[in-house]
Amino acid sequence: MINTDVLVIGGSASGLVAAMTARSNYPDAKVTVVRKEKDVLVPCGIPYIFGSLEGSQQNLIPEEGLDNSGAKKLIDEVMSVDCKNKSCKTKSGETISFDKIVFATGSTPNRPSWLKGAQLDNVFIVPKNRDYLDLVAAKLKDLNKIVVIGGGFIGVELSDELNKSGKDVTLVEMLPHVLGAVFDESAAKRAEDTLIGRGVKVKAGSGIKKISGTDRATGVVLENGEEIVADAVFLTMGYKPNTELAKQAGLVLNEYDQIMVDEFMRTAANPDVFAVGDCAQKRDFITRKKNRTMLASTACAEGRTAGLNLFDLSVISHFKGTIAVFSTAIGDLAFGVAGMTYRHACEEKMKAFTTSFETPDHHPAKLEGMHLQSVELVVAKASGLVLGGTVIGGKSVGEMVNTIGLAIQNNMTVFDLLTIQIGTHPLLTSSPTSYPLVKAAELAVKKIRQS
Amino acid sequence: MINTDVLVIGGSASGLVAAMTARSNYPDAKVTVVRKEKDVLVPCGIPYIFGSLEGSQQNLIPEEGLDNSGAKKLIDEVMSVDCKNKSCKTKSGETISFDKIVFATGSTPNRPSWLKGAQLDNVFIVPKNRDYLDLVAAKLKDLNKIVVIGGGFIGVELSDELNKSGKDVTLVEMLPHVLGAVFDESAAKRAEDTLIGRGVKVKAGSGIKKISGTDRATGVVLENGEEIVADAVFLTMGYKPNTELAKQAGLVLNEYDQIMVDEFMRTAANPDVFAVGDCAQKRDFITRKKNRTMLASTACAEGRTAGLNLFDLSVISHFKGTIAVFSTAIGDLAFGVAGMTYRHACEEKMKAFTTSFETPDHHPAKLEGMHLQSVELVVAKASGLVLGGTVIGGKSVGEMVNTIGLAIQNNMTVFDLLTIQIGTHPLLTSSPTSYPLVKAAELAVKKIRQS
Repeated sequence: MINTDVLVIGGSASGLVAAMTARSNYPDAKVTVVRKEKDVLVPCGIPYIFGSLEGSQQNLIPEEGLDNSGAKKLIDEVMSVDCKNKSCKTKSGETISFDKIVFATGSTPNRPSWLKGAQLDNVFIVPKNRDYLDLVAAKLKDLNKIVVIGGGFIGVELSDELNKSGKDVTLVEMLPHVLGAVFDESAAKRAEDTLIGRGVKVKAGSGIKKISGTDRATGVVLENGEEIVADAVFLTMGYKPNTELAKQAGLVLNEYDQIMVDEFMRTAANPDVFAVGDCAQKRDFITRKKNRTMLASTACAEGRTAGLNLFDLSVISHFKGTIAVFSTAIGDLAFGVAGMTYRHACEEKMKAFTTSFETPDHHPAKLEGMHLQSVELVVAKASGLVLGGTVIGGKSVGEMVNTIGLAIQNNMTVFDLLTIQIGTHPLLTSSPTSYPLVKAAELAVKKIRQS
Repeated sequence: MINTDVLVIGGSASGLVAAMTARSNYPDAKVTVVRKEKDVLVPCGIPYIFGSLEGSQQNLIPEEGLDNSGAKKLIDEVMSVDCKNKSCKTKSGETISFDKIVFATGSTPNRPSWLKGAQLDNVFIVPKNRDYLDLVAAKLKDLNKIVVIGGGFIGVELSDELNKSGKDVTLVEMLPHVLGAVFDESAAKRAEDTLIGRGVKVKAGSGIKKISGTDRATGVVLENGEEIVADAVFLTMGYKPNTELAKQAGLVLNEYDQIMVDEFMRTAANPDVFAVGDCAQKRDFITRKKNRTMLASTACAEGRTAGLNLFDLSVISHFKGTIAVFSTAIGDLAFGVAGMTYRHACEEKMKAFTTSFETPDHHPAKLEGMHLQSVELVVAKASGLVLGGTVIGGKSVGEMVNTIGLAIQNNMTVFDLLTIQIGTHPLLTSSPTSYPLVKAAELAVKKIRQS
């Protein structure tokens, strides 16, 4: 029998942050993290195991942060939770009693039952599971032709990495372009072209009929009948929340099977029960609608919110909704998006428009390492509110998109952005006279004035 | 006789932006820019002429922006302005009448009269003047031992570039460390060590007595008597505002010889007369005190503010005070600071404290191109308001410091920062579990709670 003040189930990004924040915020509280995995993988680093890194051992979340926080760690699996009596049972037979509990059970890759051949040998998924991925990596050594099904971030990054490691890679995506669920068409097209330029074959706009093969996968058959020969197939077709345990514990799930929570990450029925990360409900920052966004960065913000509100409400620290700041790099070209795309805004029946501006990200442009950097803003027609932004350029995109994210979180308008002060430097940023975020705002203000 | 609606004097960063913004905001207005220079140099790019670039021709502000805006350009020099009758005379004998006038006359490097030897041959300054700098670059070909006096940004960057181009460079700085006026001691020390590691000799904490030589400079004598032999000397000892013309025109200058302006960049006495950039008054965003900050990025924000308020007040677009976002790179290590340093806060008798957090800027840390990235926040004790921040790390620092700048401009507290959503990516940013801006905020909140 273990007694703890705070029990966190799950030790990936959100659970880790929830536990560390709890320890930081309530130094007298005993915090225990139960997780299945001996080693926890950096979730967004997983594709890089297959190319840039030497293996999964280079992609582990360091244990020091959790250990130094004073939280206890238990490698075990929680099999059932009794929220009313505040105790749970683990696989090893342990009983843990708690005062507060945080579900941070994450998500599992989809292996769709409707897809014929999905269960064949050499049809791999990309779970946050080191042992499984090591096995896949070992098998891949003797396999050359790889088909990746699903051109989201994991699919794109995995394809690029497998290609980098010398494989013959074909990426299949149902939408007109890879990354098409997150980026508008032109950015998605550019990402796709960059990927193709690096040697990945892309079949976009292609649904799949089945994976062929008897024991092991030998190919992928597209909806148009075309067959792509394959030694192995990766399914990168999204993830589903791990909420079976929560469901059995009587927690309410929403239509996406996420645990329903409020802005403090508490479950509606029981303020001592929290959920964070991929298993918890996501709502859009602007539309307030529920959605399926799964992002380690969002998960961490939620984990931090839970950790701050366990024993008393820190009124200021509530989670205001998912901004969804995504970024990725294909070769030396980086892509970032924060908030809404234009298509998304239209689907939500918002009156919005876009403006964009492109300029070199070094100034003068002749300096080594220069990339063209473009910013597209999505702006609400009447108010000028910044709804979203997309940045494409060199690697500074990763931080620049965070500036846009912060502008959205502060409810800034393009009028506000006109005269913001940004720092610029020849080797680090675009020129101050043409900083693309400000120039795109300027174009937006001009449009509003003319309308 | 030329008639124009808007006359801008000066064609560098702030004048250029004022003119383009005026054309964008008031499409019917005739806008004329008078400038002395046939070609305008990228101001912050000037040090890079001496190493990374092939020469000044690679460091020109492209003319397309101004030309395409529809503003007229006149290469000439304004000799006198009659603000009452709204006309001015140029060196070529032209008379220009205007409705609104914007002074964007910039600044000139100091060549202090108290410094013996400052007028000798081969004692160079770094003005925004292409012809002069080309001459210096030509002379430098036959000169090897260079002493740079003044370890601010220009001095540091110039020293690094001259060193890169094979010169024997000594940088002399009066303060205990280079960049000591802008960064706190530890960051300044780190910049200095990086510079030394790249081969620049640094004499910090050294005042200078005189420049020795009869016709041309042969050395620099420090206050302690030590003499450094030199073939050439650069004076990078700050800049003074070019406000003689404004003074003659009857405009009021403040104690720093800057043209006094309000938040809309209008002169107090005459709402048709504006001033922007290095020649215009600067006030600190937080303390509201006047200061001498000269930054192209701030100048551009001011130019944009003037351009938006020429014929009617765009109430939202006023200049809220100088944040001062500085950044630079020495080799592949970048340094950025936004807002106040701890020392600055103490000098202003603010009750403040600092917290800092360091983490790899790629995750996992084994990914190629990783740098450690540290964020130090300066925080007001009672309110938790973010007063400033310093970032040191890889090249993404240039954009990351802008996120901190935006937080300051939005009056955000460390409580707000705790649960901001940032985007992260293995190749582009630090890990979401340890994003250093959020972690530094977390440490600050902990301190506030414990006090």
